[in-house]
Amino acid sequence: MSQLVLHSDDFETAVRRVRDLRPLVHCMTNDVVQEITANVLLAAGASPAMVVAKQEAGVFASLAQALLVNVGTLTDTLVSAMRDAIESANRHGKPWVLDPVGAGGLAYRDGVVAEFLTLKPTVVRGNASEILAISGHGSGGKGVDSTDSSESALSAAVHLAKTFGTVVCVTGQTDYVTDGERIVAVTGGTERATLVVGTGCSLSTLVAAFLAANDDPVTACAAACTMAKRAAEYADKHSVGPGSFKVAYIDGLSLI
Amino acid sequence: MSQLVLHSDDFETAVRRVRDLRPLVHCMTNDVVQEITANVLLAAGASPAMVVAKQEAGVFASLAQALLVNVGTLTDTLVSAMRDAIESANRHGKPWVLDPVGAGGLAYRDGVVAEFLTLKPTVVRGNASEILAISGHGSGGKGVDSTDSSESALSAAVHLAKTFGTVVCVTGQTDYVTDGERIVAVTGGTERATLVVGTGCSLSTLVAAFLAANDDPVTACAAACTMAKRAAEYADKHSVGPGSFKVAYIDGLSLI
Amino acid sequence: MSQLVLHSDDFETAVRRVRDLRPLVHCMTNDVVQEITANVLLAAGASPAMVVAKQEAGVFASLAQALLVNVGTLTDTLVSAMRDAIESANRHGKPWVLDPVGAGGLAYRDGVVAEFLTLKPTVVRGNASEILAISGHGSGGKGVDSTDSSESALSAAVHLAKTFGTVVCVTGQTDYVTDGERIVAVTGGTERATLVVGTGCSLSTLVAAFLAANDDPVTACAAACTMAKRAAEYADKHSVGPGSFKVAYIDGLSLI
Repeated sequence: MSQLVLHSDDFETAVRRVRDLRPLVHCMTNDVVQEITANVLLAAGASPAMVVAKQEAGVFASLAQALLVNVGTLTDTLVSAMRDAIESANRHGKPWVLDPVGAGGLAYRDGVVAEFLTLKPTVVRGNASEILAISGHGSGGKGVDSTDSSESALSAAVHLAKTFGTVVCVTGQTDYVTDGERIVAVTGGTERATLVVGTGCSLSTLVAAFLAANDDPVTACAAACTMAKRAAEYADKHSVGPGSFKVAYIDGLSLI
Repeated sequence: MSQLVLHSDDFETAVRRVRDLRPLVHCMTNDVVQEITANVLLAAGASPAMVVAKQEAGVFASLAQALLVNVGTLTDTLVSAMRDAIESANRHGKPWVLDPVGAGGLAYRDGVVAEFLTLKPTVVRGNASEILAISGHGSGGKGVDSTDSSESALSAAVHLAKTFGTVVCVTGQTDYVTDGERIVAVTGGTERATLVVGTGCSLSTLVAAFLAANDDPVTACAAACTMAKRAAEYADKHSVGPGSFKVAYIDGLSLI
Repeated sequence: MSQLVLHSDDFETAVRRVRDLRPLVHCMTNDVVQEITANVLLAAGASPAMVVAKQEAGVFASLAQALLVNVGTLTDTLVSAMRDAIESANRHGKPWVLDPVGAGGLAYRDGVVAEFLTLKPTVVRGNASEILAISGHGSGGKGVDSTDSSESALSAAVHLAKTFGTVVCVTGQTDYVTDGERIVAVTGGTERATLVVGTGCSLSTLVAAFLAANDDPVTACAAACTMAKRAAEYADKHSVGPGSFKVAYIDGLSLI
């Protein structure tokens, strides 16, 4: 399969649509990245809401314009609320993103990810180790950090996309977005982003915001990746370490 | 009702009292704003403690000098612990603040907020959509962000204050504080603060700190709002986007 | 007992070992400091993973290279998962650190800390009020902030180390590390670090990372304290308030 790139016009259109719509994104994410996830969405022009109660998740997924499900720190109660939210999103035609944080090596989360994969996520976004793991080809990552290059997970991503009828986004030095037919490659960014917790997790939420505002999921996903890489490049120029990188990354998102 | 303003002498006295007392504030808040809430209190000169266990919340509310209850991310267990803390605060004469995050639209939290309102919070602090919602006049906000101006919620705030015998603080471009008799208006600040998650939630905790150190709740509340607006003005001058705004906001609180 | 200091060669060796190994640290910590804990580990050259599910904690403690247990915001479920993780760490010979946040005054956490102390933590890291409390000599701190100097807790620390066969690290203006035989004193840093939430909690995790990469726990612990103090000195020079202090502290860790 030949690799496509996102035209800068299409990127700009996708960003403008997010800013015009200001989509409300329902975030069900892990304990560690709650704040950066909200701040990334706000900086990009979307509106975050972290609604996780079993009593609220299903209703709220129907009110929001997109849903994020991130399995980083699960409990049985949270998994049950996530199921309600996913079912509601599907019933109301809302796009949703699955982030399989740390997949490969821990049976509980692997079981949850396997179940959620069958519930037709619009996009699955993960690092190479995670995408390899959920496609059954993983050698196991190192906790939540990837030990594989995104290239090495590309054929697994294509296979996964075809098998589950979803768009798969595998991020790394180059990000790849595929629906099993097309592959869009997004280059740029900097490895320094991996030294700030939540840059990957919050990208998954950014994908959800772009899905809410744009019709084609491959384009939406590639545009979100492009925005993250541009913000990382801005941060690379305006920081001396990971503390100031994080600050400049959020600034960069708002300045694009 | 004519609108009053807080004299700068009264503001400075209120701030000095917080810094002299360094009140211990018991924070029961949502998953997203834990860190910024603690850092806002520390920067302002208070001492935060996030104690949420059912086994600890009641006891700790009697040891602390003020309590914050924020309903952003509830669970049944947390609600039960909050009830214990509120009852203990009331029994020991400690002031407490209710932040009805996202009220209006989700039955579970609306029910919890309605119950807590009857437990005599010293102050209720919310955005316009939230205050309209809990007074029964809401059209529904957008998730946790306000879609109404604070002016539009002013008569609802006065009504709420009279009905429940509480002080109501509705924040926005202008912040209003009312006990149903007096209205104090606090101007200044910048809309840019709404692009940083937790500036509203952490203001509610700041109100709790000011209540612990100052006798009149209207003055305490207006002083906390003034401090937040001054810090936001400092941040407005010392930032290029929401990442650096947040950093400068915390700096600004400590420099006042 | 005479007080030793850590030689700068030993410090540099200890830091290099962390960066060479890039240890995976299993963090079970409180709700407030999740993000700063992860970012401190990443900046220092380690790899954090926050795995807290009852179904995962035991397995993951055997995969990770060190474990942190912080009792700041407990629930019964979390305590049960912590027990599994501690047992697994002990069975697989992995070092683990106990951070008794807020010990002294709340029966529930004091009971949990007393139990965990008998499970042979490699290191116990706390402020003076906490170390005094768990050795039975406390007058009670102020929430989670210390009201005692580290000197005042030194003999309690030595006693605790002998009683439980552990290394005790009491931090403050001077940090002390003792195994009951030796005392290493670490000076420097700045009191301004206490105005940023999580500088203490994340130091405990840094200790875990150093334990994973270095054989002698006293040296590992003193090296982690030294790294934190150096980063705080860097931050002291590159900040105007606690907001920018936190950013510079993370930067400083990465620049050492």
